[in-house]
Amino acid sequence: VSAAEAEPQASPPDHPSDGDLALRSVGTVAILGLGLIGGSLARELAGRGVAVLAGDRDPAAMAAARAEGVAREALEAPLEGLCAADVVVLAVPVAAAGAVLAAAAPHLRRAQLVTDVGSTKRGVVRAAAHLGLGERFVGSHPLAGDHHAGWGASRAGLFQGRTVYLCPTPSTSPAALALAESLWRAVGGRSQVMDAAAHDRLLARTSHLPQLLSTALALALDDAGCRPDQLGPGGQDMARLAASSPEMWSGIAAENADELSPAIAALQARLAELRDAIEGDDPDAVRRLLERAREWRG
Amino acid sequence: VSAAEAEPQASPPDHPSDGDLALRSVGTVAILGLGLIGGSLARELAGRGVAVLAGDRDPAAMAAARAEGVAREALEAPLEGLCAADVVVLAVPVAAAGAVLAAAAPHLRRAQLVTDVGSTKRGVVRAAAHLGLGERFVGSHPLAGDHHAGWGASRAGLFQGRTVYLCPTPSTSPAALALAESLWRAVGGRSQVMDAAAHDRLLARTSHLPQLLSTALALALDDAGCRPDQLGPGGQDMARLAASSPEMWSGIAAENADELSPAIAALQARLAELRDAIEGDDPDAVRRLLERAREWRG
Repeated sequence: VSAAEAEPQASPPDHPSDGDLALRSVGTVAILGLGLIGGSLARELAGRGVAVLAGDRDPAAMAAARAEGVAREALEAPLEGLCAADVVVLAVPVAAAGAVLAAAAPHLRRAQLVTDVGSTKRGVVRAAAHLGLGERFVGSHPLAGDHHAGWGASRAGLFQGRTVYLCPTPSTSPAALALAESLWRAVGGRSQVMDAAAHDRLLARTSHLPQLLSTALALALDDAGCRPDQLGPGGQDMARLAASSPEMWSGIAAENADELSPAIAALQARLAELRDAIEGDDPDAVRRLLERAREWRG
Repeated sequence: VSAAEAEPQASPPDHPSDGDLALRSVGTVAILGLGLIGGSLARELAGRGVAVLAGDRDPAAMAAARAEGVAREALEAPLEGLCAADVVVLAVPVAAAGAVLAAAAPHLRRAQLVTDVGSTKRGVVRAAAHLGLGERFVGSHPLAGDHHAGWGASRAGLFQGRTVYLCPTPSTSPAALALAESLWRAVGGRSQVMDAAAHDRLLARTSHLPQLLSTALALALDDAGCRPDQLGPGGQDMARLAASSPEMWSGIAAENADELSPAIAALQARLAELRDAIEGDDPDAVRRLLERAREWRG
């Protein structure tokens, strides 16, 4: 490492820099929630020599994280153990983030950065500001989830090359933001700073809408008596997200209802247009719609 | 091979049996259309020593198929070359299948089997019967397509483990059906005999509906100013089919409009239900729908 410091090497931008300046002050990271995202982050950081304190409501996940040498210590209510953490990461379903943040707030003595990993950002950014954590808080959303969930699905490499949206509060300090960027860069992510409201508007369309479409497709296929094994390769792609966590996604839908509603409406309008063209026996209109969609997809 | 004949070996059901009894009488196969499906079938058969006669409206695809040693001879209008074929396979878009079959019919002197590979089956089965090809015709639909198209996307191995629906006419001979089964088994497919009407009803839901949903999603995202590179892993899965061939899919939608219309309607009903639950601030209802979809997906 000292040689690398003396003579900086050209490295590709994706390559995690373990010697990152801002990260050097981080010895201990607390991660609350050892699901796909929290568990994968814990594995990455522990693998880089960071002391990981971890908490999870599931004793089996905690035991596995300790047995695998990922979690150095277990965090338990009332979360006093958080006082030793330089960075605190909430990795719980968005519906639980407010309560967990409130429970954690009294113990964030040392923390230079408090962040989360949820799929909606307005609520948690607002909650952090209300709890007096505005300067140290940065909302994070790594675009690394899929239909898998839980510690068993967590793995090193999950964040490699993935976009990570960072949503500051109105009072986030430059140091906290820089530390959040360093943290995600260290595990392979590509961070992008975005206003929380813009994030929720975008993600309603690029993530939450696709999820609900897959769910609606699964429901319609179930209604029609079709089985998943009757899907071809393309249909399999479309139905995969239907296996996502109901707990996580009902929380996301509730948090982002005001953005999801017009996003679903826009989809409904395009689907109705396709149906009209098909029922109207207008193959040219159908073809034009297919062509425009294909052009967008590139 | 003679040893295997003398003492049949236990082989896994997926394993193509090159020594298949019914296929032994096939020396020459004509394939009209060298797209993803036709091109892949041509590669598989040529690789097994079958003489492949091929026709494609695109001279570049024809030239490539000959240069790569896949097509032994080029078939050109008026398709007189078909008289040498033991098996004839139409691998053209469904909108063109009827016309190509009519053009081919006068030249099918030797053919023991005439089949196709289209995504809808009622129309082509009816057309074959009307052309007096009922005994020798079996409609085929290998569930092996994706959003790629053309000779450039064709490859050996495409049919491995894939379902191939076989739809006989009312007068298909047992020998023709057995030969169709042998043909697809030889290239790794798992054939399943199904009535053409039942096929079109099923595929409207398991294949055509997912395609149109992906198209509608792409259109809605385009309307909202979102870019494909803003999609996460799950959203990418959902938007992938939007890149499918507009020509092919507008033809499929036209052919199967009567089945697609209620399939889209059923999806619309479930999507409206999800939207109502989200707008009604009813996370339990949203969760129940997510749970039911997940149970179906397994």
